[in-house]
Parts: sequence; structure tokens; C-alpha cells
Amino acid sequence: MSNDRTVRIVPLGGLGEIGLNMMVVEAAGDLLVIDAGLMFPDEEVFGVDHVVPDMSYLIAHREKVRAVLLTHGHEDHIGALPYLLSRINVPVYGTRFSLGLAAEKLKEANLLSDADLKLIRPRDRLQLGLFEVEFLRVCHSIPDGVALSIRTPGGLIIHTGDFKFDQSPVDGQLTDYRRLAELGDGGVLALLSDSTNAGRDGFTPSEQVVGQAFDAIFREAQGRVIVACFASNIHRVQQILDAAAATGKRVAVCGKSMVANTRIASELGCLRIPDDTLVGLAELERLPIAERVIVTTGSQGEPLSAIARMAVAAHKQVHVSPGDTVVFSSRVIPGNEKSVARTINGLYRQGARVITEDMAGVHVSGHASREELKLMLNLTRPTFFVPIHGEYRHLHQHAHLAREVGVPEARTLVIEDGDILELDGSSARIVGRAPVGRILIDGKGIGDVGDAVIRDRQRLAQEGVVAVVLAVDQQCGKLVTGPQIICSGFVNAQDSKTLTDSIKILVCSVLENASEEDRTDPRLMEQRIKTAVKKQLQKEIERRPMILSVIMEV
Amino acid sequence: MSNDRTVRIVPLGGLGEIGLNMMVVEAAGDLLVIDAGLMFPDEEVFGVDHVVPDMSYLIAHREKVRAVLLTHGHEDHIGALPYLLSRINVPVYGTRFSLGLAAEKLKEANLLSDADLKLIRPRDRLQLGLFEVEFLRVCHSIPDGVALSIRTPGGLIIHTGDFKFDQSPVDGQLTDYRRLAELGDGGVLALLSDSTNAGRDGFTPSEQVVGQAFDAIFREAQGRVIVACFASNIHRVQQILDAAAATGKRVAVCGKSMVANTRIASELGCLRIPDDTLVGLAELERLPIAERVIVTTGSQGEPLSAIARMAVAAHKQVHVSPGDTVVFSSRVIPGNEKSVARTINGLYRQGARVITEDMAGVHVSGHASREELKLMLNLTRPTFFVPIHGEYRHLHQHAHLAREVGVPEARTLVIEDGDILELDGSSARIVGRAPVGRILIDGKGIGDVGDAVIRDRQRLAQEGVVAVVLAVDQQCGKLVTGPQIICSGFVNAQDSKTLTDSIKILVCSVLENASEEDRTDPRLMEQRIKTAVKKQLQKEIERRPMILSVIMEV
Repeated sequence: MSNDRTVRIVPLGGLGEIGLNMMVVEAAGDLLVIDAGLMFPDEEVFGVDHVVPDMSYLIAHREKVRAVLLTHGHEDHIGALPYLLSRINVPVYGTRFSLGLAAEKLKEANLLSDADLKLIRPRDRLQLGLFEVEFLRVCHSIPDGVALSIRTPGGLIIHTGDFKFDQSPVDGQLTDYRRLAELGDGGVLALLSDSTNAGRDGFTPSEQVVGQAFDAIFREAQGRVIVACFASNIHRVQQILDAAAATGKRVAVCGKSMVANTRIASELGCLRIPDDTLVGLAELERLPIAERVIVTTGSQGEPLSAIARMAVAAHKQVHVSPGDTVVFSSRVIPGNEKSVARTINGLYRQGARVITEDMAGVHVSGHASREELKLMLNLTRPTFFVPIHGEYRHLHQHAHLAREVGVPEARTLVIEDGDILELDGSSARIVGRAPVGRILIDGKGIGDVGDAVIRDRQRLAQEGVVAVVLAVDQQCGKLVTGPQIICSGFVNAQDSKTLTDSIKILVCSVLENASEEDRTDPRLMEQRIKTAVKKQLQKEIERRPMILSVIMEV
Repeated sequence: MSNDRTVRIVPLGGLGEIGLNMMVVEAAGDLLVIDAGLMFPDEEVFGVDHVVPDMSYLIAHREKVRAVLLTHGHEDHIGALPYLLSRINVPVYGTRFSLGLAAEKLKEANLLSDADLKLIRPRDRLQLGLFEVEFLRVCHSIPDGVALSIRTPGGLIIHTGDFKFDQSPVDGQLTDYRRLAELGDGGVLALLSDSTNAGRDGFTPSEQVVGQAFDAIFREAQGRVIVACFASNIHRVQQILDAAAATGKRVAVCGKSMVANTRIASELGCLRIPDDTLVGLAELERLPIAERVIVTTGSQGEPLSAIARMAVAAHKQVHVSPGDTVVFSSRVIPGNEKSVARTINGLYRQGARVITEDMAGVHVSGHASREELKLMLNLTRPTFFVPIHGEYRHLHQHAHLAREVGVPEARTLVIEDGDILELDGSSARIVGRAPVGRILIDGKGIGDVGDAVIRDRQRLAQEGVVAVVLAVDQQCGKLVTGPQIICSGFVNAQDSKTLTDSIKILVCSVLENASEEDRTDPRLMEQRIKTAVKKQLQKEIERRPMILSVIMEV
């Protein structure tokens, strides 16, 4: 630190990518962590559940870390908490719903009992070491989002979190314009602002637009309505409940995370359930078809999600049929287009009518568009501007936009993960690099598995590989050729024949015991085969080879 | 065949997926094949270059096959010709540009000399066995597209190919409304119509819209302009040339397929090159920067394409720099979103301004939207309607749309690959199933490798696997850890040490000999390592193990 009037901003994730959000604000003896987010891996990284930022910078300065501040409860802002807290146990400050979701996540990782979760409300102020932190309400696609105002030795820093300026938010809680303007009047050293939609012109529509769309769809629908959206989008669920109540329908919630989040949200008072509107799935299915609404997950076509299983007629309770309307109330996250298309095609095959993002205003973004980003800049009038949360193109577009509202190019700082930016009242410069990178996490959620690609390759070499390959009829899912079993590097020749024969028998029985519906879902069957073969190999030869299960539809 | 007044329609590909287009029209003793298209495989099918339809139905009826009729020259309509002609050598009928591209493709497969390519012009009529075939001009995103009018014993069938109703086509060649209307008056048994955009409301804008966008961008641009589009979109290239000529710029063509297609198109008179507008890359780079325009490929972010290499500053001749404008003049094909985003981010890093599909009308579709599809139905007024070319949802949406213009539901037939549809003057029914499926093709382009996934797995088992894993610094591409070499199943323990050591040395030298630009392109380096290791292993131990090369950026 150059002197005691300077402050450092060190992004550990989220600047140069979507997700993985983690930011350090650091002064002489103290350090704050803003968010601890994860990212979902690309296909090519086999066996990895999610990715978290390299936190060695925090671990190196562990004695300085005063707190983790959560801006909101999305996975890409809280998903790395288990990993962080299992290494540095510091207090975590967050609003009602953010802490509610964080607690759920820490419970799964058996870290809740040791965690120090501190509930805050918007406008609360805290002294944390050298820093005075104030939490400011912002609108986003999840309840209880906040921006952060951090008074530092170098000056005031505002971190927007993820936000939009919704003029008619579903929960009536406006972004805190007034306080942002006051802080702007007082002088802001640096604004760190969400760049996700920096490429999108105009204003992002109000979440209420979606409520109006639901209302129209619900009134028109003769049959059952099924809505798929993100489980954390409680405002969306609220509007589904309200539209159902207004049109004499009942709603059942379906899908593990959707059930959990609606429970948490209603316990915390973030979700108001109109009388008698919410019913169980079984009860719903006894009602007249025109009164049935199902809220579920899987808007990204995740193979094991409720909606994906409905699309292949493989859902235990819900059987999609002609007359049903299915609404995809979310955007397709880049990379998921094919799985979403597969799900939509399946739903059409079941006879459903499918309404997607691009039709009828059934989705709006949770992030500010260009005119709102300008408004944020004009409210806070910062000396320095740092675009955050986005790929490089978004940061660049946001920086470019800042010039339109008069922020000089020299005071707009496009930095990326690992850049150590040092600010004082008058100057800003990059003084070094922090170690950054992506840590691949396996199922348990807190164990750093080093590099999972290497791990897979090592297992391939040390434990060998079993490939189970079969071709099935894409119509009926029945076996066409195979299963062909290929073992390598873990069993000697004379044993391998016996082993592969026993695997063949096992695989066939998995197929035969599956319902015809399940059988036509290759991804699902691949999973089942993997699990069965893994179990059998551990039992028979106490080995854990890499298991590749490939079903080809012909 | 029920009797000599009936005709059969048998889709072998393209009904239930995008691409893989192949349709059979069959009467008593004769059979016509419409198009022979390929499809690009999903990531999960390692080592597969492309996919072609199972053609065993044609091979079983080979003596009846009279001809292959090409509607246009896109890969998903002609890409399976080498596979087909190497099994059944029948005459191929197509227009100028379609045959030009087909000839190029057959030359690569050493099949051109034996191929019987027959040039036709729109409005030409031929007798092919029982069928009288007429070719009708249609507008599409490639020159010389045609629809087919096929007079059969059962009645007249119209196959639209891929089409749109462009009211101001770049080449002045309108879709043949007049003839379509005449045929409609005479009575059409069945219309088979392109469903790709059946979900898109209104009319698809004219291709000329893009020309106007280019004109504006070219006038405004202070620096160099680089446009990425599909190599087959000659109208697009024409408009780039025209806009350049109008704004005093010169154009260089860059990228193998772009160079080949523009050459073929200008030789055939499909592309008019304004005087002195087209120059070589080297010559272009000597001109004032504001006069430079480059047309190139890689609009899908293909790792080895010209634009992707420019994005990582790895292109030999073209170095993107601040002031450059890069235009992505194409839509992103689902599945390519991430690679396109990677390319765009890279171009921003080089300092370029990037204009994409969603801005400024730099792309329009080549397929008819809903109002145009209605017009096609109203011009032809068919007894039966069969939606073709699309995923199930598109076929369904098209069928639904047909009802809006009065085609009775009972006469709208949503069939899929393999359904054998039999028609006579008054009735239509599915009388059976033809074998259908996807055949995976390796590099050579005509060799059916059975199932490439099995092939990979077998090689893993029989020849073993070498995994070369290293981590590089994502900034400078320098080695951070590794290379870690893992061999399995192809070399015994005591040799393996020596072998892995020699591979390590090789890999390091590949890295060291790479330019810093190349080194920061992991996909490129992975390719180079693969090639080098493969060569060395063949030399040293005469084995061909599966080589997995994985570079992680940290």
C-alpha cells in the first residue's frame, strides 16, 4: 500500500467472464471481500460440477480479511462461499434472502454450524476495520439485492452488485435512487458498475411486464399451464401465483430447487402466497385441467430437470398432453441452446404449445440496459469508473458508454481479474497482479480437486477406462447394437472377457428394466448405466476406472 | 406401391433436424432423390467431421434411382453427394452455382471424373422416368436456388427447397411467383415447403437491407473494415464489393473457402466484381488504412478460421488494431455461441470495434418467414401439405400456420425422417418406415467409418491413449506446469518412462518454437502438439494411440 490514504481494488473473478464474481477492496490493514461466486464449467471439463475463483490472494492476506459482503443470492455471487469459508472463516453479511440461500448452501456442505452469518437491512451502516459500509437496495431478478457504499481511506467506493432500475418492481422496493444521489453529491471516488447488459440499448422493461404476459396466457389457456423459470426468481414465481389467483387457477411447485427456494422465500416473507393458491402436485392433478398451473425448473434444458423429463414423457407425476401450454420464462444461457431446443421439440411431440422468451414478453432481464447504466453514472458522478461483471466486450462497451456521459477516458479503467488497482483521491494505477485462476470443484462442493482434467487423465492411466457403447432406436429406445464394452489399463486380458460379459449383462438389464419413456432419454440412460457399472466394478474388482457411457440414437 | 396412380414421399433427412436434407419421391418403377445434405456433428462425437443420412433405402432400390436433383449449393443440401455417388453413380441435376460447388466437392473426393453432372436452368423441364421435373427460381442466401415441380402419376408435387420471397434480390432474380401461381391453378397434389423460419412472424427483410448497412458502416469507418460471413453467401460478398466501390475502398478476400467460392462464383458469372475493387491481401495492406476492406470466413468462431486467428493476433498477414471495425454478417448457429463470444472478446482486446447480427441490420435470413410461407401456400393451394426442413417444433409451427390459410388439418401431414408417405389424388397415408439414421464420416469424406465413437473407444483399448496435459499462463501463453504425459494401454512400464520423457521434450519445443501470438491460442497449440506427438510416436514405436492434448489457461 503506497500510503494510508490509498485503497486497492482487486477483482478475483467476474471481470472478463460471466459469473465467478469476487472482488477485494483493501486498505492499509483491512480487506473486504464482495461476493464469492461460482461458474458452471464448459462441457470439455469432464466430471466437474462447478468452478470457483483462485482465492490464494485472500489466503495470503487471511489476517486482514474482515468480512464477506453479499450483494445478492445468485449462484454466481454466493456459490463459492463453502469453498471460501472452509479455508477462511470470516463473518458473512447479507440481506434476508441472500443469507437464506447462503445458509441452505452451507448446510449442504456441513459448514452452517461454524458459519458466522450476519443479517443486514438496506440502509444499515457498519464499521468494518477501516471501512464504513452501507447497503443500498437495488432491483434485480432475485429479492433483496443490494449495492454497496464503502467509505475508505482513499474515498467513497460504490459497487452496484447486479442491478436494474425497475420503476414498478414486483415487491414495490425501488432501487435507492435517493441515497445514490446523496452519495453522488458527497463525492464518489470510484463507481464499480454491472456491465452484463452494456451492449443492450434503452431501458430493461419492468418485471411487471412478465406478470401481464402471464395474466393473458392464463386467461387464454384452455388446458394446463406449465411455467419453467429460474428457482431463484421469486418475483417471477410471485407473479405466477398472482396471475393464477386472478384467473381462478391453482399452482403446484415442482423440482427440488424450486420447492426449496419458494419455501425459503415464503418463510422469509419474500413471497406472498394468495390464499389456497398453492397446492401439492397430487392435489393439482385432481383439479379440472383448466385450473392447473405448474411452476418448475429446467428452463435451460438440464437433462435431469423436471421439464426435460416431461419433454420425454419420463416425469413420474406430470404427463404433458395436447392442450397444455408450456412457458419458458427465462433467457437461454449461451451454450444451452441445443439442450433447450431438444426440450422444446420434445414438448411439441407431447402435443403441448410452447411459448419461449422471444414471444409475448414472458421474460425480462434482471440487468440494467445502456440508459440505466448512464443513469447510474449520472447519479453517482464518480471520479473514477470501473466496469465490472461481464466478458471483455461488455466491460469495453460499458467503458465506451461512460464517455457518452462525460467520464473522461483517462478516468475509465477497464481492468480484468487479477489486476491490482490502486486509487487515491486524484490518481489511479495498476500496481501489480494478484494470482487468479479457476479451481475445479467436484461433487462435495468444498474440495478443491486440483485440476479435474488431469485427475480424469490420471485415472485413465492409473485405473484405466471402461467404455460402454450402445446404439438404440431413437423412436422406442430399444437396443439396436451393442452394448460394446471396452476396457483398458485396469484389468488383464484373461479376466477382461469375464468382466466385460458381466458388464454386458448388467447394461442390458438396466435397459430392460427402464420404462419405455425413460429408455427414449439417452442422457438419462447413460447416467443410469454409469452408476450401475461403477457400483458393479467396485464390488467385483475394487477398482474405480473412468466410465464412459455413450448411447447413440439411430 | 398400391397402384400406378400413387406416389411416395420418403424423407431420409431434414425432417426433425436442421440439415441432413434428403428426400425421395418414388413412383412405380422410378425414384428421384432431392438433395444429399450433411450435418455438422455435436461436440460429443469425437473425431467426426460430418454426418450424412443413412442411404440404405436408396441402395436397396438402386436400380430405380433415376437422378439426384439439387435445390441449391449449401453443404446441408450437397455435402453428402460424395458419399452417395461413391455408392450409386446416378446423374446429378443442378443449376450453375450448385453444380460449381458440387464439382469442387467431388474433386476433393476424387469422384469428379466419374460423376455425371447435368446443368439445368430455371424453367427447364426434363422427363426422368415417370416424372416430369421443372426447376423454378427461388431466392435464398446463395445464388441459383430452385424449387422443384414434379409431375408424378399421383399428381403434381412442389418441393420449395430453401427459399424466401425477396422483393429486391441482389441479383435481380425474383422467386418465380408467376409459374408457382400457374401450377397452383393447374392443381397441386402436395406442397413440400421449407419450415426453418416457421416460428418467425412477418416477412424476412430483403438481402438489400444488408447492403445499405454495409454502405453506412463503410462510409463511417475511419480504419480498416473486416467482414466475416458464410463463404457461400455470394450476394453478401457482392454487396461488400459494391459498398466498397461506392465508398472508394478496395476489398481483399481471405480464408480458403471464401477464396474458392468467390473464384467459382465470378467464373460462373454469379459475382460481378467492380473494376479494380478486388485486390490481394498483400496489396491491400499497402493501401491507406481507410481504404481497406477484408472479407473473410469464421463467422461461427471456428478455432482455425481466419477471423478466430485474427482475434488472438495469430493471423500471419492481418493484424487487427485499434480503429478497425469487424462485422459479423451472419447469424450464430446454435451451439456456436461460446466460440463466437470468444472471438468477439479477442477482437475487442485487439482494440477493434465489433458489429454483430443484433446491431445495424448486418444480417438477414435466407428463409421465408410466416407471411411468406402463407403466400407460398396461397400461390400453390395444394391438396396436401407436408412441412419440410426443420426441427419438430418448426414442422409443427408450419403445419399450424397452414390451417390459418385454410389447409384442413386432415390434409396437413407432419411426417419425420423415415416415414413412407403414400399419396394419390384423394388420399394420403403412412404405409411404412424406411431405415434412417446418421452415418459418421471421417476426414476423407466418402468413407463411412461406421461409428466414430466406437472407433475412438476401440483405439483407446487397442492402441491405448496418450494424454498430454499442460497449464499455460493465459496472458502470455508460457508454460506454467507440465507437460504431464500419461500413457495407457500401449506401452509397457519400463519403456514408458523413456517415451514420456521424449514426448515432454517434444512438447516443450513445440511451445518454445511458437510465436507469442500463437502461444496464447490454446486450441491452436493443442492441435500442433497433437500433430507433433502423433508423428513422433509413429516414428519411434510405430503405434497410433489416441492422443489427448489439453492446455489449461491459468
